[in-house]
Amino acid sequence: MSMLIGVDWGSTSARAFAIGPDSAIVDARRADDGVLLRGGDFAARLDALLGDWRERFAAAPILMCGMIGSDRGWVPAPYVAAPAGLDDLAHRLVAVPFARPAWIVPGVSFVAGETAEVMRGEETLIIGLGATHATVCLPGTHAKWADVADGRIVGFRTYMTGELRALLLAQGALATDAVQADCDDAFRAGLDAAREGATRALFQARARRLLGRLAPEHTAAFASGVLIGEEVAREAGRVRGAADGAVALIAGGALAAHYGTALRGTGLTVLEHEPGVMAARGLLAIARRAGLL
Amino acid sequence: MSMLIGVDWGSTSARAFAIGPDSAIVDARRADDGVLLRGGDFAARLDALLGDWRERFAAAPILMCGMIGSDRGWVPAPYVAAPAGLDDLAHRLVAVPFARPAWIVPGVSFVAGETAEVMRGEETLIIGLGATHATVCLPGTHAKWADVADGRIVGFRTYMTGELRALLLAQGALATDAVQADCDDAFRAGLDAAREGATRALFQARARRLLGRLAPEHTAAFASGVLIGEEVAREAGRVRGAADGAVALIAGGALAAHYGTALRGTGLTVLEHEPGVMAARGLLAIARRAGLL
Repeated sequence: MSMLIGVDWGSTSARAFAIGPDSAIVDARRADDGVLLRGGDFAARLDALLGDWRERFAAAPILMCGMIGSDRGWVPAPYVAAPAGLDDLAHRLVAVPFARPAWIVPGVSFVAGETAEVMRGEETLIIGLGATHATVCLPGTHAKWADVADGRIVGFRTYMTGELRALLLAQGALATDAVQADCDDAFRAGLDAAREGATRALFQARARRLLGRLAPEHTAAFASGVLIGEEVAREAGRVRGAADGAVALIAGGALAAHYGTALRGTGLTVLEHEPGVMAARGLLAIARRAGLL
Repeated sequence: MSMLIGVDWGSTSARAFAIGPDSAIVDARRADDGVLLRGGDFAARLDALLGDWRERFAAAPILMCGMIGSDRGWVPAPYVAAPAGLDDLAHRLVAVPFARPAWIVPGVSFVAGETAEVMRGEETLIIGLGATHATVCLPGTHAKWADVADGRIVGFRTYMTGELRALLLAQGALATDAVQADCDDAFRAGLDAAREGATRALFQARARRLLGRLAPEHTAAFASGVLIGEEVAREAGRVRGAADGAVALIAGGALAAHYGTALRGTGLTVLEHEPGVMAARGLLAIARRAGLL
């Protein structure tokens, strides 16, 4: 049985999976060794990430996705223009120099009129979902909403939800020394406030705090409500117009809970999927189609 | 003739005006000595700001507005609840201990349902405008849109336009080493992109750069277009519903030009006013009503 070592190597962290032929994740590990956190020498960094896998899975080829294929990564893997599916990605893998066969999955670009979109890593999770027709929501620093038709990514949109949340909570008028605690009421108040638009609703986190209407420790929950509310409101109409009215949500933990609340609040059906499982399945599918296994 | 020394003391800078009885600004000065930039000892900082004015305008009382009256300022000046006009502000001045009579203008708060709003400093510029009925736009870190009726501030809204622009350009996916140059085309492209909502349109600054559709040095102009476009789109309907369909814009320099472009693009009439003149007039009007002169 041939194994695959899959690596989802993003800006701030790397997640590696030892994947069996039945898609089973035999072993998994994670390192705070994001592409953007340290300079170069990716071969040594990948070798360190493998550790005892070097011998345990000695015959396994390696397939990577994410920012490792960007111009700040190991070897640039040029974007494949949407529509893009399993074949399009599998035929454009980029090889990297390493002690064993190792490849990078390209990102996907999408241009519609003046609007330009790019993704790296999400395309692999979407392939892992294995849907022929779906609207897929992938929360994160740069949240993606992708339309899948006939098994290919035909278009997608990006929201700066995660990055704006992080920037605003770290400094400026919304920052606070209070240790943050999740709070469903504050999150829902943020969802409501989002109707006025995010750039107005975000200031509510400060004004309500100053006037004693929001606890300092619920600032992050409120800001999450505003930003996720804005994103979901923009997408809900599109999803309702689609045949099935359902969203495939690829997210875990608090993000999955928040997006689930916001999506269900607009009357949509939500199907949750674990990001690590989707990454492993996607990498295995692409590796097989490319003939690496 | 009795002079007034007026000080608009905000978070990042202090602007002082020696104001004659006819509202003429006899002299003016500015210091990068914002309320939040250094801790305490405001008496010494005000004394340094006065400099030779100590003798030149020895008899003049001092009236201050802005963040100097916040809980991080000299002496807290509690918010006056809207509706608030000249009388309401003049009757709630807060005295500070100084070598000569010195006072702070309170800020204004506004609560409507769940929505809370606060301002400090803008109320004085609005008084300086001297309008009985108007919609007033005050761009800045936290841009304000105020409704004036019968000479009083009856309601207002805040947009985090300036703060979001600064945070996004300083770090994260939009930051760039390229020296920024203003560009009308890039600004207008941002205005157009804003129709998709700010949290999506902002990412366009990165995606278009990556795909060669936006010059790195025009990132700031594009982001300004997105954020100002979002703000103006939210307010335009309200202004068109008002009797005169005009906006009083209190702004100078590039901000005045950008907001003017965005406002006129929605078919509104724009009347521009210089912030320093508005501050001096407002401080003089409040000082007179309070009997300081």
